[in-house]
Amino acid sequence: MATTENPPSDRPAAGTGPKRIVVVGGVAGGMSAAARARRLDETAEIVVLERGEHVSYANCGLPYYVGGEITDPAALLVQTPESLRAALALDVRTGHDVVGLDPRARTVTVRRTAGTEQVAYDALVLAPGAQASRPPLPGLDSPRVRTLRTVPDALELRGAVRDGARHAVVLGAGFIGVEAAEALAQQGLEVAVVELAPHPLPPFEDELAQLVADELRRLGVAVHTGVAAESVVHEAERDTVVLADGTRLAADLVVLATGVRPDTSVFEAAGVACERGAVVVDAHGRTSVPGVWAVGDATVSTDPVTGARRPVALAGPANRAGRLVADDILRPGTARPIPDPVGTAIVRVGSLTAALTGANRAALETAGIAYRTVHLHPNQHAGYFPGAGQVHLLLHLGADDGRLLGAQAVGADGVDKRIDVLATAIRAGMTAGDLIDLDLAYSPPYGQAKDPVNLAGMLAQNVLDGTLRLWYAQDVDAVLSGALVLDVRSKAEFVTGHLPGALNVPHTELRERLAEVRAEAAGRPVRVLCASGVRSAIAHRVLTQSGLDSASLSGGTLTLRAALGPRAAELLTADGPA
Amino acid sequence: MATTENPPSDRPAAGTGPKRIVVVGGVAGGMSAAARARRLDETAEIVVLERGEHVSYANCGLPYYVGGEITDPAALLVQTPESLRAALALDVRTGHDVVGLDPRARTVTVRRTAGTEQVAYDALVLAPGAQASRPPLPGLDSPRVRTLRTVPDALELRGAVRDGARHAVVLGAGFIGVEAAEALAQQGLEVAVVELAPHPLPPFEDELAQLVADELRRLGVAVHTGVAAESVVHEAERDTVVLADGTRLAADLVVLATGVRPDTSVFEAAGVACERGAVVVDAHGRTSVPGVWAVGDATVSTDPVTGARRPVALAGPANRAGRLVADDILRPGTARPIPDPVGTAIVRVGSLTAALTGANRAALETAGIAYRTVHLHPNQHAGYFPGAGQVHLLLHLGADDGRLLGAQAVGADGVDKRIDVLATAIRAGMTAGDLIDLDLAYSPPYGQAKDPVNLAGMLAQNVLDGTLRLWYAQDVDAVLSGALVLDVRSKAEFVTGHLPGALNVPHTELRERLAEVRAEAAGRPVRVLCASGVRSAIAHRVLTQSGLDSASLSGGTLTLRAALGPRAAELLTADGPA
Repeated sequence: MATTENPPSDRPAAGTGPKRIVVVGGVAGGMSAAARARRLDETAEIVVLERGEHVSYANCGLPYYVGGEITDPAALLVQTPESLRAALALDVRTGHDVVGLDPRARTVTVRRTAGTEQVAYDALVLAPGAQASRPPLPGLDSPRVRTLRTVPDALELRGAVRDGARHAVVLGAGFIGVEAAEALAQQGLEVAVVELAPHPLPPFEDELAQLVADELRRLGVAVHTGVAAESVVHEAERDTVVLADGTRLAADLVVLATGVRPDTSVFEAAGVACERGAVVVDAHGRTSVPGVWAVGDATVSTDPVTGARRPVALAGPANRAGRLVADDILRPGTARPIPDPVGTAIVRVGSLTAALTGANRAALETAGIAYRTVHLHPNQHAGYFPGAGQVHLLLHLGADDGRLLGAQAVGADGVDKRIDVLATAIRAGMTAGDLIDLDLAYSPPYGQAKDPVNLAGMLAQNVLDGTLRLWYAQDVDAVLSGALVLDVRSKAEFVTGHLPGALNVPHTELRERLAEVRAEAAGRPVRVLCASGVRSAIAHRVLTQSGLDSASLSGGTLTLRAALGPRAAELLTADGPA
Repeated sequence: MATTENPPSDRPAAGTGPKRIVVVGGVAGGMSAAARARRLDETAEIVVLERGEHVSYANCGLPYYVGGEITDPAALLVQTPESLRAALALDVRTGHDVVGLDPRARTVTVRRTAGTEQVAYDALVLAPGAQASRPPLPGLDSPRVRTLRTVPDALELRGAVRDGARHAVVLGAGFIGVEAAEALAQQGLEVAVVELAPHPLPPFEDELAQLVADELRRLGVAVHTGVAAESVVHEAERDTVVLADGTRLAADLVVLATGVRPDTSVFEAAGVACERGAVVVDAHGRTSVPGVWAVGDATVSTDPVTGARRPVALAGPANRAGRLVADDILRPGTARPIPDPVGTAIVRVGSLTAALTGANRAALETAGIAYRTVHLHPNQHAGYFPGAGQVHLLLHLGADDGRLLGAQAVGADGVDKRIDVLATAIRAGMTAGDLIDLDLAYSPPYGQAKDPVNLAGMLAQNVLDGTLRLWYAQDVDAVLSGALVLDVRSKAEFVTGHLPGALNVPHTELRERLAEVRAEAAGRPVRVLCASGVRSAIAHRVLTQSGLDSASLSGGTLTLRAALGPRAAELLTADGPA
């Protein structure tokens, strides 16, 4: 075990197992590999080379430090080189930037303040992570432009706030961008977020992301979506971010959060096979170069739902791969394969939680997979128990086999649980019927006897076997021009806002008023709706069994309003006072 | 559709599908069957016969009404006969007690206040539920003895509280008993709970149930476990519950919550095959009698983990079976089979949540299934994020195949989510490795990058493949007499309480002090422990690779203290002031 600095090109003694394992990158995946390697092998020398000043830091916690919920920056340092040496006899070297790899000599070149040196390895694990992608935006070199990826980044942002920054612009409304915007708003800054996609959190479907956009606005964040930033104009007092639509946003602080790209150029240059910049690995994390493994944000993996190949920048899959790579190095031939990450992610936005797992509509369409979508808005727990509130949930399922392909949810409570259950279901290859059958824990404070996941399964099963036929918010124009819209909400709900020309027949009166509906339809299809899709599904069954061409609006007016966004106010006309 | 009372022995017209579906019992399973039947068939006559005054009431919500968290009893009535008629054209008849069945005539005999009548059926669904089992206890006929199964029961309990009841005794500390005890304590009563099993919530393992017992005591509830009630002595002023150990408990109110038994005698007498009182059904809910189906608490089902046959008194499985029975009646030959319920359950106790899924130790031992158990105490979310607290979690896994067989958890937060994920994993037949691989949603407020479920999988995988060897709290006497106890906690932790004769070597010093450990062991096995099992697992790897016979205490002193209960105070001796 090396407890002192290795001289350049020192060479560990030969032996049966790898005598020296060198890990490049000391955060999630790299540190998982190092720790697991030590647990498996007390004799190996394990060296971790980290470019930054910290290892094992809580990068997912950085926005909460900026926002002030985490007050002690030391809390972000989960481990230190000293604690890792003491507990696991790891030789952790911070300030060691790997700038070269010689696969034949089995050495890496390390740049330090003190100069450059060679470090030899028997087994090399690459966990360099990703770096902020910098779009070709004039002015991005302004000193007021920062990222939020490291502890020093977070300290600098806090410093800028303390030094009186009043206006912040966040470029990119992905997960980090949204968290950064909220954090800066919590600190009292005027914050604007700019996103090229039509809504914040681009991986989410529009009808859920709009709820997040509304919540950001409620937090005081100005949301600019569907628009590019064109330049950052640097001036002495304050910068200005200029958008493609001409909007000019004052900025004492610009947070660049437009995504990341794998930090692999050194290794690609040394002959490690990459795919669009991400290291290609096999099921055991082995790269194209013998003796070299790779894990984490820098690697490409296969989406188990769509087959798409992409890097996944999530801590969970990185940790998992790190552990399995250590197994493959030290227990060759017996390690379990690294699973393809499903890509489950979650973010807190104000009082809401937004989470998703599996494939979204865009990914399914790109992959050419036929799917059906269901929307529902069940309470997270029994409606009669205090604190009940809706989970806005959507599922995509295979049109042919009923397999769960993806799920998304937004709500104040109970979102994380349902998405975790659904992520588990995707991993297990479950179908709509399997979701119905899940025995989930029920008691009034925790769920419903028919849990939202069970209800989603029932709804999906009905759609897949033809018991229920849906129409979708995006079909609204075709429906308005060619169908009778039948609104089965109560009169009191109807008058608060309904589609033009809609016939209001509360679902409890439908059986007696069928002739009226048939006459009004006059041969046109009937497109039913209610607030959430429950009553309209019952109505659909009545209508379809009476011979009418009927379909029920998926997710009801709740989903329609979210999907239409600002257009909802125009389209859903309220009746005047009765 | 019958909207008026049927005359005795009226007969629906013959046809292809069943023209009249009669459902006995209007709560969970029965009402699910009726509602689904209507959705599938607008033409069928659907009659629901309910003995009580209410249908579709929230029986799981009753304790929260007694405790005062739910203030309006009307909130407990999820549906009424009127709402069900309006929405689903159901003919719901309350106050209709089914007292006879003639399978050849296809009629049931119904007793009402007005007299007795026959109701004919084409298809009959039995959902009579269960009734409180009444142990052969002298004095149980005291008017102060009540149950908590119906809305009138709950109203009466509230009434008794309002009328000045000060002392309550709850017989039975199962889920309902614990909820009732807490509810009455919330109302300011002095409450004692009496349970024959060694701990409250008998299906839980001792080392978790003790946490619930502690919480009940914190709520002011006196917990009498491992003791039988011998009699209830009824006196004018107040009753007295006498326990087998001589304890006498004053009671203005006795709540009988010693379990339930299927309410099936009428149907068994009519020739419906039963097994220890529960109706035997096939995968589609069909009984031994043609044209008669049964669902819910009154039916027997097979434990998918152990193969044991038992009734399951849970709303979720009842609802699910009701829906699938309607499918089998109206879409014969195409209905999905009713899944075997895993038996997931949850209860809130004060500030804690306790939940379990799958098989427990007793069930596995009865079934002769070889299993391994792991204990762990991870935080429910990132430790550096405000509000972090432990989830006390245990898993049982197949010793041979690594399949998840059961899981239990107790904690302040995050318990329901992990048990739901694990219940899903059991249903999917997942193994320890599969739990490691689950992509669960991570962000600091919601979880850890290695979620408790992932950590449980890692721990279990290590145990199953021999990387980790455990010893258990119940082995403590054998360990004390035959092994060196090595306590790898810090000195500061060690002096707060440790096993007699334990050697304290903090895990960070272990590698340098191996010779000392070897000398102290003097050929004996080394049994390591720490607070939760994390550090001792690392130490085990050091010790076993150095050739020592080593094992790590499952769950550490946290589990040891809970498993030892009151004995912990004697056994874990604290050092005097240094």
